[in-house]
Amino acid sequence: MGVEERRQQLIGVALELFSQRSPDEVSIDEIASAAGISRPLVYHYFPGKLSLYEAALKRASEDLASRFVEPRRGPLGARLLRVMRRFFDFVDEHGPGFSALMRGGPAVGSTTTNALIDAVRQAAYDQILAHLEVEHPPARLELVVRSWISLVESTALIWLDGRRIPRAELEVQLVHDFAVLTAVSAAYDEEMGVLLRRMLKDEPPDGPFADLVARLADFTS
Amino acid sequence: MGVEERRQQLIGVALELFSQRSPDEVSIDEIASAAGISRPLVYHYFPGKLSLYEAALKRASEDLASRFVEPRRGPLGARLLRVMRRFFDFVDEHGPGFSALMRGGPAVGSTTTNALIDAVRQAAYDQILAHLEVEHPPARLELVVRSWISLVESTALIWLDGRRIPRAELEVQLVHDFAVLTAVSAAYDEEMGVLLRRMLKDEPPDGPFADLVARLADFTS
Repeated sequence: MGVEERRQQLIGVALELFSQRSPDEVSIDEIASAAGISRPLVYHYFPGKLSLYEAALKRASEDLASRFVEPRRGPLGARLLRVMRRFFDFVDEHGPGFSALMRGGPAVGSTTTNALIDAVRQAAYDQILAHLEVEHPPARLELVVRSWISLVESTALIWLDGRRIPRAELEVQLVHDFAVLTAVSAAYDEEMGVLLRRMLKDEPPDGPFADLVARLADFTS
Repeated sequence: MGVEERRQQLIGVALELFSQRSPDEVSIDEIASAAGISRPLVYHYFPGKLSLYEAALKRASEDLASRFVEPRRGPLGARLLRVMRRFFDFVDEHGPGFSALMRGGPAVGSTTTNALIDAVRQAAYDQILAHLEVEHPPARLELVVRSWISLVESTALIWLDGRRIPRAELEVQLVHDFAVLTAVSAAYDEEMGVLLRRMLKDEPPDGPFADLVARLADFTS
């Protein structure tokens, strides 16, 4: 195997192990053994576990960011739901590694690690703005989108801790959450109101958002 | 000064400096100078900057947790709004230190630091359950409360980054967010529906929640 080929193989092996158990618990010996090479040879390609971890995280974060890409057609709610499904697929595949990373254990939290996490959040943010066809987001829209992204992260983390709620339910719920968080902001701000009306214009009149609002209205009667 | 008195004084001085600038940028020399003692004397009380940082963070986290305590009377929305105001007071007072901590720079992210952050989150969670008078929260309620807490954190962080939205608006918005996130969960789950009705029973029929839902309904018409 060539150097780059061997590096890519090791990254793949490491990512699989880091996805199955907390990275803290995975040793270089295990990675070497799973790759079928000697421990010193691993160190020949990666100076230490942190650099291998960061390389694996880089691959995972590029994989995740690629799942945010969605054709720009059809109702926005349906697009977001498809992205949520692919996001939960990713979380499902990388459960323990995702938890360890996002909960910030002692082995993570390096500058590189934080930059990779921020890049994925930024990719999610950029995709949403592109779908909303907003180039210069007002501060309130930026707040809603970025804080919703953190709501998605925490929802996934809580889901992983025991998986007590079916993930399909949470995927739909997060789409609804996006709509209502935008609507709360829009309820008292005209600029956000205009944006929300544009977001909803292709939603079916008897679709999920209308259904949701009707159900909410029931609680105030 | 006695040993404990001197330690408390140093913690207070350090906390003030860590609140004004990112802790990474605060040196032991500065802390010594602000406390009017020599650098070696600081090390006599604290073995290093990390231990002083952790002591300061401990004091700040106890301060923050104490602000979550609210008498259990009156409409729930008004109680939560008062807590949000005190939370934003805290964020305002400790802006740069709060940002650095929650964004997880290289100097933070120790096991002790993470445990302190988790303890504050748990205190917030416990207070909310106590006010809802729920002893054994169903999984969906736990998810809503914990994920809303992370929404509050990220909203505060985004607010600190430029303060482009008046904090009073965000305090109200977060109370509304709590209501609608619970309502989204309640819209499709009977157990959460019962909880939501109980939460809303003391809200005025022409109060903020009813007003909000009426405004949301406008967007679907």
